[in-house]
Amino acid sequence: MSKPLILVTNDDGITSPGIGHLVEVMKGLGEVIVVAPNRPQSGMGHAITVGDTLRLKESRIFGDVNAFECSGTPADCVKIARHYVLKDQVQPDIVVSGINHGSNTSISVLYSGTMSAAIEAAIEGTPAIGFSLCDYSAEADFSHALDYVKKITEQVLQKKLPMGVALNVNFPPRRNEPIKGIRICRQANAKWVEDFDERRDPNGRKYFWMTGNFVNFDKGEDNDEWAIANNYISVVPSQFDLTAHHAIPALNDWEILMR
Amino acid sequence: MSKPLILVTNDDGITSPGIGHLVEVMKGLGEVIVVAPNRPQSGMGHAITVGDTLRLKESRIFGDVNAFECSGTPADCVKIARHYVLKDQVQPDIVVSGINHGSNTSISVLYSGTMSAAIEAAIEGTPAIGFSLCDYSAEADFSHALDYVKKITEQVLQKKLPMGVALNVNFPPRRNEPIKGIRICRQANAKWVEDFDERRDPNGRKYFWMTGNFVNFDKGEDNDEWAIANNYISVVPSQFDLTAHHAIPALNDWEILMR
Repeated sequence: MSKPLILVTNDDGITSPGIGHLVEVMKGLGEVIVVAPNRPQSGMGHAITVGDTLRLKESRIFGDVNAFECSGTPADCVKIARHYVLKDQVQPDIVVSGINHGSNTSISVLYSGTMSAAIEAAIEGTPAIGFSLCDYSAEADFSHALDYVKKITEQVLQKKLPMGVALNVNFPPRRNEPIKGIRICRQANAKWVEDFDERRDPNGRKYFWMTGNFVNFDKGEDNDEWAIANNYISVVPSQFDLTAHHAIPALNDWEILMR
Repeated sequence: MSKPLILVTNDDGITSPGIGHLVEVMKGLGEVIVVAPNRPQSGMGHAITVGDTLRLKESRIFGDVNAFECSGTPADCVKIARHYVLKDQVQPDIVVSGINHGSNTSISVLYSGTMSAAIEAAIEGTPAIGFSLCDYSAEADFSHALDYVKKITEQVLQKKLPMGVALNVNFPPRRNEPIKGIRICRQANAKWVEDFDERRDPNGRKYFWMTGNFVNFDKGEDNDEWAIANNYISVVPSQFDLTAHHAIPALNDWEILMR
């Protein structure tokens, strides 16, 4: 069997340590190609570049790994990798995104550029995983996660994924005890509560910094927040069909639906 | 009963005709407050502004309607409206977003700034609707949609929505026959197939325009693409829990899950 083709991307930008670790692990699993943003794209959600141009430049940042930096969003990177770099011919066997510097558990999956790249791949029918480390610090230690990154990627290469699904994998921060294992989870019921820090620029005009606190409402043990808090790796299957199928019967009760 | 407080936003920017129509309709239903982007934010998905500042400026564009233009994304607008403009005290009874110039059916819900504003409101527990007209032209005729915008908003104000759900409402373009009615739908199984138009700038450097064709794989009649094609208004309940719950049993079969 030939080596799998692995497309690597992220949202922290091609120079971030997290993607360096991911490329290193993937080199042991197959042929690697990198198309990643040329600057940080955190919080970009599923943004794409419309009404503006894109740049794409070869990069030697990973030595002899075939790599490109792109001016677009993570979702743009997956699209341009598929349709331009790979010319719609060879296609990746898997897309891996990350390793993100910071958590993408719970509601953060919606805001996550890391996961938007994985979901974009899932739309194309390619198995995909977004990896994130729940540690925002610039000197975050990824070492406890790397063997699991390899194992999870191997498992997905072997078993594939259900259609329409990408995996949202989060690693607990490095703690004094080893990781307890992997948990398949649902997205926790939690949200960010924002605050707006109002300041004045040197010209006296108002501006704001958005800050936020994460609030977890979820008392369950089958969710990603519980897993991370208890030193497990969380794996959430995430989908791009946003339809709330359970809500359809109630809406069909509307009086304004004249048939 | 006091008049409902209605927060209006969009992703085409505060000067676009679509939001003007929406504000006009909402003035007949309650007290209106507008917080909308100060420039087009199409394709922004669920992007938020992290690592950068936000500006917010009062606007008299809608006469005596309390309005603000914001430098951020649609999701930012909902957040700053709630936590700064309304100071976490009074909260909107409903959030309406749009009317978008162009379709947000099917997979486009993921890329849609219009819907990200509605989903952001749903996260906060506020009933919310994203309205889009399936007509991209600058001179698009919204007149056939406006009475339905009013009816649908009234229905949601009266019946509320299931928790965690926002409505994605799309109107067919104005055709020779009247709209046939409203259909509660699921998101169609369709995607965009991109192409990258490669050009050279005046300095000889490569750049790209991303273009795309919409491809519909869905043969069903219970989806939003079918509704629009058949001159119905589509209403899809959309949720922010991306968990593919149906995929959890298969993943629990992984060999690497040592418990």
